[in-house]
Amino acid sequence: MKFDIPKYNAPDFNLEIFVNAPDVKLVEVDKEGVSPENYHALSVFPEYFKVNGKWILATQSRMDSACVVNDELGKESLKIVELRNLKKGDKVAIGRKEDGSEGIYMYAHGFNASLKCSDTFAFRCGRSRETAFSVDYDKLYEILRNEKKNNGYVTWVLGSAISLDRGTRAALEKLIRDGYVDAILCGTSLAAFDLECAVCDTVWGQEVFVKEQTTMGNYYETINMVRDAGSVEDFIKTGKAKDGIIKACVECSVPFVLSGTIRDRFTLPGTYNDVRDAQDAMRVHARKTSTIIMVSTALFTIATGNMTPSYNEFEGIIRPVYMYTVDIQEFAVNKLADRGTLTATSIVTNTQDFIKHIGRALSK
Amino acid sequence: MKFDIPKYNAPDFNLEIFVNAPDVKLVEVDKEGVSPENYHALSVFPEYFKVNGKWILATQSRMDSACVVNDELGKESLKIVELRNLKKGDKVAIGRKEDGSEGIYMYAHGFNASLKCSDTFAFRCGRSRETAFSVDYDKLYEILRNEKKNNGYVTWVLGSAISLDRGTRAALEKLIRDGYVDAILCGTSLAAFDLECAVCDTVWGQEVFVKEQTTMGNYYETINMVRDAGSVEDFIKTGKAKDGIIKACVECSVPFVLSGTIRDRFTLPGTYNDVRDAQDAMRVHARKTSTIIMVSTALFTIATGNMTPSYNEFEGIIRPVYMYTVDIQEFAVNKLADRGTLTATSIVTNTQDFIKHIGRALSK
Amino acid sequence: MKFDIPKYNAPDFNLEIFVNAPDVKLVEVDKEGVSPENYHALSVFPEYFKVNGKWILATQSRMDSACVVNDELGKESLKIVELRNLKKGDKVAIGRKEDGSEGIYMYAHGFNASLKCSDTFAFRCGRSRETAFSVDYDKLYEILRNEKKNNGYVTWVLGSAISLDRGTRAALEKLIRDGYVDAILCGTSLAAFDLECAVCDTVWGQEVFVKEQTTMGNYYETINMVRDAGSVEDFIKTGKAKDGIIKACVECSVPFVLSGTIRDRFTLPGTYNDVRDAQDAMRVHARKTSTIIMVSTALFTIATGNMTPSYNEFEGIIRPVYMYTVDIQEFAVNKLADRGTLTATSIVTNTQDFIKHIGRALSK
Amino acid sequence: MKFDIPKYNAPDFNLEIFVNAPDVKLVEVDKEGVSPENYHALSVFPEYFKVNGKWILATQSRMDSACVVNDELGKESLKIVELRNLKKGDKVAIGRKEDGSEGIYMYAHGFNASLKCSDTFAFRCGRSRETAFSVDYDKLYEILRNEKKNNGYVTWVLGSAISLDRGTRAALEKLIRDGYVDAILCGTSLAAFDLECAVCDTVWGQEVFVKEQTTMGNYYETINMVRDAGSVEDFIKTGKAKDGIIKACVECSVPFVLSGTIRDRFTLPGTYNDVRDAQDAMRVHARKTSTIIMVSTALFTIATGNMTPSYNEFEGIIRPVYMYTVDIQEFAVNKLADRGTLTATSIVTNTQDFIKHIGRALSK
Repeated sequence: MKFDIPKYNAPDFNLEIFVNAPDVKLVEVDKEGVSPENYHALSVFPEYFKVNGKWILATQSRMDSACVVNDELGKESLKIVELRNLKKGDKVAIGRKEDGSEGIYMYAHGFNASLKCSDTFAFRCGRSRETAFSVDYDKLYEILRNEKKNNGYVTWVLGSAISLDRGTRAALEKLIRDGYVDAILCGTSLAAFDLECAVCDTVWGQEVFVKEQTTMGNYYETINMVRDAGSVEDFIKTGKAKDGIIKACVECSVPFVLSGTIRDRFTLPGTYNDVRDAQDAMRVHARKTSTIIMVSTALFTIATGNMTPSYNEFEGIIRPVYMYTVDIQEFAVNKLADRGTLTATSIVTNTQDFIKHIGRALSK
Repeated sequence: MKFDIPKYNAPDFNLEIFVNAPDVKLVEVDKEGVSPENYHALSVFPEYFKVNGKWILATQSRMDSACVVNDELGKESLKIVELRNLKKGDKVAIGRKEDGSEGIYMYAHGFNASLKCSDTFAFRCGRSRETAFSVDYDKLYEILRNEKKNNGYVTWVLGSAISLDRGTRAALEKLIRDGYVDAILCGTSLAAFDLECAVCDTVWGQEVFVKEQTTMGNYYETINMVRDAGSVEDFIKTGKAKDGIIKACVECSVPFVLSGTIRDRFTLPGTYNDVRDAQDAMRVHARKTSTIIMVSTALFTIATGNMTPSYNEFEGIIRPVYMYTVDIQEFAVNKLADRGTLTATSIVTNTQDFIKHIGRALSK
Repeated sequence: MKFDIPKYNAPDFNLEIFVNAPDVKLVEVDKEGVSPENYHALSVFPEYFKVNGKWILATQSRMDSACVVNDELGKESLKIVELRNLKKGDKVAIGRKEDGSEGIYMYAHGFNASLKCSDTFAFRCGRSRETAFSVDYDKLYEILRNEKKNNGYVTWVLGSAISLDRGTRAALEKLIRDGYVDAILCGTSLAAFDLECAVCDTVWGQEVFVKEQTTMGNYYETINMVRDAGSVEDFIKTGKAKDGIIKACVECSVPFVLSGTIRDRFTLPGTYNDVRDAQDAMRVHARKTSTIIMVSTALFTIATGNMTPSYNEFEGIIRPVYMYTVDIQEFAVNKLADRGTLTATSIVTNTQDFIKHIGRALSK
Repeated sequence: MKFDIPKYNAPDFNLEIFVNAPDVKLVEVDKEGVSPENYHALSVFPEYFKVNGKWILATQSRMDSACVVNDELGKESLKIVELRNLKKGDKVAIGRKEDGSEGIYMYAHGFNASLKCSDTFAFRCGRSRETAFSVDYDKLYEILRNEKKNNGYVTWVLGSAISLDRGTRAALEKLIRDGYVDAILCGTSLAAFDLECAVCDTVWGQEVFVKEQTTMGNYYETINMVRDAGSVEDFIKTGKAKDGIIKACVECSVPFVLSGTIRDRFTLPGTYNDVRDAQDAMRVHARKTSTIIMVSTALFTIATGNMTPSYNEFEGIIRPVYMYTVDIQEFAVNKLADRGTLTATSIVTNTQDFIKHIGRALSK
């Protein structure tokens, strides 16, 4: 299966409609974390703002956030900022029209021409357990091989179920070591299950291979050990963890972001317990991702999906961000699927099986 | 992973409780398809009935059905009959106690001793999307290899989603040709989707590989063609079907039972449209199955699960029947899981992925 | 909440496109139950066929079926026939274009004008557990009150879960007695559970009120009793059933169609065991229904949805058929929801709660 | 339906086994937030610890947490502390046996005797969409009436879907004003949806009654307004919110805890953004709750379920805490259901319907 990254066709800003458009209106923030009225909320699509007569593309975008404009002559630039992060004095782009007439232009069709040629299967409709996914798997394998070859940035957002199965854990470890993983966003429990397994051969106190209950304390004792060591990285250095996802991340310098949730009674050191800090840490990766694969976690998937643009800029070139949502429940995948982009794909399956499929295909 | 079929330990009928027990009470059927009051309903476990002083095992059993006894001296035998199939004059076993005291003995522990040794992971609890299934897959591979080697009888009960995906259809075709399938129980739509694909390269009027809509008529036109040919087998002889599940079945003499449902507007020739006939045709295979794998069809799974005993007799030896229920929905797999036997396993996943996993593991 | 049945605006057949169109092409059936090639498959929308220069509306339509034309001069008429029911010599309408150019005209917009005015909430999108349903309940109450007043025909398609809950069973009994139910389509198990409860105060052998297990035999014994009585109606006459859904149906002359499935080991007398007969019996009601409510049964819902047109003729007036699909699972309701009509509504909830809501609202 | 709160039968500590047991072993915490090895993890059941020869009940318990003992003579007391909250010098109870032999006694049967008499339906098994829930609703109504009369403490844990439906929102507002709600635990989105509706008549930018899309900005603008006002309470004082859940809470002094999640881009003032603070704020209510109803939110339900004991002490009397889990998905309710107590009940339904049922029953 041949696969080419679709080319981006920028709008023609010599058209009269763009030339005659006014600069976007700016209003300063008056109170920290409160936006001016009628602020323009970003979409997932490429958007341009006219500043001092120039049309500038908002890169590293985030849905529903505000565009803060630097309109100093000659130094024009844009920053996409969550409303909560607005500072006093920030100049926010104002306007609810996206057709250029207020200096704001949303461009939904930048990749379409090229998509129509290379991507005949783009005309998707609803996804359910009965959808045929062979085509989607094949395309994903191509994308991942391509990302590895061309220095793409593949972000994996993973639910803790991934650590619960022997074969799945091993498959993911190999994917990390083979260079198919550039960052992992997850909760403390994925990492703690994985470390428990690496240290005690159990997960959640259960012997993984034979499904026999041993002692429930192993999970918390493992967290205790890591806290005692000071950090996950220091704990890996002790050599107590014999294998697994986190060990591979540390050894291959693949960053992992541990975000806290109100479900976590006890967390690994390094976990972001303030949800705003967690989002900021996650968005570091979303800003530069070229493919994002979100597996088995409604909460993290929605959080990350919201902060990931449908395109990113790589060495001056605009390209689409491929987004995969994988869950056993239609409800979960469909919540994010409808982003109006051609690069979001959802797969309804057991997520352990999904990881094993990927692992097997890419280890050939 | 080593795997041995558990040994059956028959009860010791020299014990006083069995020696002193009376013969089972028999009452004749008075009206066709109506059972005598207090008839004994069979369970999924081995059950023995005392007739003329001998304890006889009910083989080819079926849950909730009646035991019709031939008590002619020297020719004692049992037949497990659905209530609807009772004939006038049939002598039905009567009694609600299963401890031997009324000449009826239900024996739930025949395989336990041996299970405890070889099957340490038998202590299962609830199954959900978060269960680790690697162990179950591994065991299933072993069972299937073993069945092939030892002339077992593997029955597959399949929902129509299996025909909808290119990779899944190919995997199943190969499993049939490699000898891992002894019978298929399904609806007319699995077969018709498969044949449509074999003839027109579409399923449900949709081009399988590229997911482009072509003409919706292909499905019905395919059924038309087969009806015109007279039978599925005659249609395969025409050479119009270039590949697929049904072609493989016909060419490898693997029987397939097509059962009608009220959802079917138009069916292939050979479809059992009377649900009683369909059940009788399905039970032919349930009676002799050694492993049964039920995938992606709540209706057929419940129907077949109800008619499959937890043990069968093979050349005089009693052995357990392995039963797998595979669906993307916990609700579906759990409806059947709770049979009280150690040989029923449920797996929660996308069923297309399931078939592809099996195919890949067994084609090595 | 005011509610008016939308008016139907017939197409203007004086337009040149219709005047100049040819008569529809007819081809005779050559072999029983096999259609001519390129037969025209009906949709859910109103369709007209040109016969001897006249445009005739196909009433009592059924999706995917064939149009059999009587083209005797002066006696022109249409019959919509399932492919399996085609007889030798039937003249079948041929053609794949629906724009009139082949004498076939599909008219999707007959109710739109009036819908746009009275039905501002018609712009629906996907339905899930998070959809707000208060509006839909209110509209349904209005529809049911209106149907009762104006001699509509309300068909209920019901899964067996409806009989399992005390409050639900009582609510449905009252709806029947109050005149909100014109026909029930269901399986043998709904009726048998209901009768078991009416006779033994248990369902499926479980004491309904206190959820204590009593004797499992009650279900089959109840069916035995009814089979012994000869028919459900004769059994009701014995007075053994003290209350419930089936008793109310018999006493109020509300027809109920019992359709068999391969899951049923033992059925009530009167059950249609051949799925083709079952469909014919169900379609008798679908042909004349004005509102159809399908609750808690994927199999029956799909079967009935397929055979119910989106419009019917009542005393010469064309009006929409309101269709409600109610299930706890999005997958089930969405399978049928996408009929392209404005009169199909799906509600995602516990179906026992649904019936109780309806009962409470209409008993005021 | 008569309903009595089950009586607690304390263990008889004069039995030799208790008299002869040693004091529980204590080990001091060495490092903040790291527990000593082999710390005793609390269960959901009543547990007693022997300190200076006295058996003391751990009240305000929390599953999987540690027991910090004050063993000063004459001032013996226990505090149940999350591992993360352990301070240097805390004396933690050590031991893995719960039979008294290490000075720790878990008592699972304190309510059983009385439950067996008054609660015959306590013998529950799995819960699914097909379970009959009428009995459970009736019992819940009784419990809520009883809690109101006897100054119980009813905590509601609510997902944001509750704010999305007009009828549901009104029903909950009335329950608050009628005294059936003592605390609400929820996310910022439930409150923001509710306030958006109170101010703009939309939710999530959608006109609630007619389901027409208006302007998407309303949600964020509402949060902006509240942030501008300084606090939710101050915003309510402005009079801009004309009705709803939050207005009722503020006016009736019902506390609501807003916990942040990584999904929240923009939160109401007063939201706990650090998940540890959020848990501490939630546990204030869990510690004193007598009934807890968790609706439509897997994340909050698991979080709260984990921190709520199965019993609490009220004016010196030990009584069970009733716990209801309500969701449309079996998976969600069953995750918490299996607590081994007789007072946890799960209901599978649309949660909007659930709230409306409660509202209707209690407003009579």
